[in-house]
Amino acid sequence: MALVVQKYGGSSVQSADRIKRVAERIVETRKAGNDVVVVCSAMGDTTDELLELAKQVSPSPPERELDMLLTAGERMSNALVAMAIHSLGAEALSFSGSQAGVITTGAHQKARIIDVTPGRVRQALDEGYIVLVAGFQGVAQDTRDITTLGRGGSDTTAVALAAALKADVCEIYTDVDGVYSADPRIVPDARHLSMVPYEEMLELAASGAKVLMLRCVEYARRYGVPVHVRSSYSKKPGTIVTGSVEDLSVEQAMITGVAHDRSEAKVTVTGVPDNPGVAGRIFRVVADAEIDIDMVLQNVSGTVSGRTDITFTLSKTNGPTAVAELERIKDEVGFDQVLYDDHVGKVSLVGAGMRSHPGVTASFCEALATAGVNIEIINTSEIRISVLIRDDDLDVAVRAIHDAFGLGGDEEAVVYAGTGR
Amino acid sequence: MALVVQKYGGSSVQSADRIKRVAERIVETRKAGNDVVVVCSAMGDTTDELLELAKQVSPSPPERELDMLLTAGERMSNALVAMAIHSLGAEALSFSGSQAGVITTGAHQKARIIDVTPGRVRQALDEGYIVLVAGFQGVAQDTRDITTLGRGGSDTTAVALAAALKADVCEIYTDVDGVYSADPRIVPDARHLSMVPYEEMLELAASGAKVLMLRCVEYARRYGVPVHVRSSYSKKPGTIVTGSVEDLSVEQAMITGVAHDRSEAKVTVTGVPDNPGVAGRIFRVVADAEIDIDMVLQNVSGTVSGRTDITFTLSKTNGPTAVAELERIKDEVGFDQVLYDDHVGKVSLVGAGMRSHPGVTASFCEALATAGVNIEIINTSEIRISVLIRDDDLDVAVRAIHDAFGLGGDEEAVVYAGTGR
Repeated sequence: MALVVQKYGGSSVQSADRIKRVAERIVETRKAGNDVVVVCSAMGDTTDELLELAKQVSPSPPERELDMLLTAGERMSNALVAMAIHSLGAEALSFSGSQAGVITTGAHQKARIIDVTPGRVRQALDEGYIVLVAGFQGVAQDTRDITTLGRGGSDTTAVALAAALKADVCEIYTDVDGVYSADPRIVPDARHLSMVPYEEMLELAASGAKVLMLRCVEYARRYGVPVHVRSSYSKKPGTIVTGSVEDLSVEQAMITGVAHDRSEAKVTVTGVPDNPGVAGRIFRVVADAEIDIDMVLQNVSGTVSGRTDITFTLSKTNGPTAVAELERIKDEVGFDQVLYDDHVGKVSLVGAGMRSHPGVTASFCEALATAGVNIEIINTSEIRISVLIRDDDLDVAVRAIHDAFGLGGDEEAVVYAGTGR
Repeated sequence: MALVVQKYGGSSVQSADRIKRVAERIVETRKAGNDVVVVCSAMGDTTDELLELAKQVSPSPPERELDMLLTAGERMSNALVAMAIHSLGAEALSFSGSQAGVITTGAHQKARIIDVTPGRVRQALDEGYIVLVAGFQGVAQDTRDITTLGRGGSDTTAVALAAALKADVCEIYTDVDGVYSADPRIVPDARHLSMVPYEEMLELAASGAKVLMLRCVEYARRYGVPVHVRSSYSKKPGTIVTGSVEDLSVEQAMITGVAHDRSEAKVTVTGVPDNPGVAGRIFRVVADAEIDIDMVLQNVSGTVSGRTDITFTLSKTNGPTAVAELERIKDEVGFDQVLYDDHVGKVSLVGAGMRSHPGVTASFCEALATAGVNIEIINTSEIRISVLIRDDDLDVAVRAIHDAFGLGGDEEAVVYAGTGR
């Protein structure tokens, strides 16, 4: 008997009708002879509606109370799925994150899982129940307050439970039937990938592939949990994320896929005095505002003026804060101005094979040049090349690179509307 | 410094705007120098909406999961009130019933409070916080599952917390500004009562007065918690429920008020063999279906047939079940038929003074006769007289009795729309 952890996103449980369909799938898995643990997100727009209510009563609601408010959403959806399972004649129990033993840090709205002590979940499984666990939430180790895990938190809950229960697989049900060599909405002949090693999935997630969140993949790799990404609406096998790139046979594709990201903006600080410590001061101010930066470019000081420009990218949502923080130190540091540009896009090529093929970067740049796309910043890891370009060029660039490396397949992608989380 | 427990009903927190008004009231109480613990019901129609969703996914949802679902409503409203308090510059923490130490039996949907261990609430108070506790919910002592307390559960939560914290008063905010000598919607000159002893309030609640639930009054009496019933929409003092009828001075009114109840139905079993044990068999069947009965009438066997009629009243919601259970034993017991009548009403007169005034029952019956109201069943306790009449006669009967005992006042009642719970 296998132990399967399944995670369903908000769109999969957005109505009574969808909840009943999810329940059927869960009961089928149970009847096939598996122990089943299920993690559901809140129904459809519940979280957004609760956030809107919070804004109406308080301009800046305290994060502890936001967590108390938002976690109600997952409790409701998981209880409803348990009821739907019950009406199909199977037995189910739903648990809150706290009851399921999801222990986190005390950082409200962005807590991290410290440990999972699934004693009650294990006992309920042993008694023959299907177990539902409210995703996205836990209980703080120190204060015993209710916490939320931030974006992608339900995926992380599922993987963490799978690790703690030593599950055979963690199935993530979403709107698409797996990971593709590029976004099928941009590249019609994108190839479905049946298997992706953890390292490559990490790079894809960090490069903007939305199918799995970075934290979830990190957790899965650390504990060796095989993650099966599949569609809520079809029975086709999806993509299994597992194993190391070292396990790949030499016959396998050198390059795995192309990812893109429209969520970043570019900040340029011009006329920065070219003295030691100045760049550090600039990045420290941004870091102190708890803002992650992604790509960085420092122009070579080309003039006698002894001044340079520093450019970096960050999430658009953090743009205004970063600009304000930098303006604050303008006189102290003595730079000219802060420029902000949110019409940029990032395209990345990921593949474990590229570290042993020195021509990849050249081919990548040639493909973009042929397509008439200008590169603003370039950034690489051992198994990834990323470039920042104009956002208008993004679709053209993704297609050009996908073609240049011959990544296309002949199978049609199954894509549904909605976001799946 | 006094410790005040306040309870606000669902209509008091049904919108962002009302939540903000409730928050202002709470902060005022805090600023007046009190420690404050607040229990809120779920917002407006939340509970009904969740029940409707539950019905859509399952024809008979398991009660454990219903409790998990419904308790989300109070978590949300209490977190929102905490946010609104925060935006007024005061500090508040919200706790679930479980976090606040509300320990109950495991009877889902109708759990009873076994104990309250308010360690976290006390600590938060000591640290200067206003504390919000989600009403209507607790955690089962044996299974650690989430439970709900059934109707009036938030009032009971508030009184139980007040008892455990040894609060100075438990304020129940509702749509009316207290307890009246009769329902002011029926009797325009009904008198506002500034104080009602526990025993009288128990009789009034049991007789249909909706302002406080019976369980809540029982709890308050057992632990000696003074309960102040007041309006969410005015600052006027309400009614204090406290003390024993023995404390009343002889000058005080002999009669306190008139209550009425439209929620009961009458069941008559006709042609019952007049043998020992038959009535017991009939009432056992009803009791085994967990149905409470109220008034009972057994006609004197008047004929040579050796048969009699047994009549009793019960809540309308239990009517169909009781009739079905009785039909099941018809042949076994050998009675003629089961009659069901839900066009009845009950009117009661309550007052500690009546035990030393033998003429009260006579005056009561005379008043009804003068008003042309026919009595079907009569039932009394030491401090109460109740009669079952036609529901069409109810308003006339309430006014006639209120007049006959001179209960009217000259102050205008403050009554608002809505139910308050």
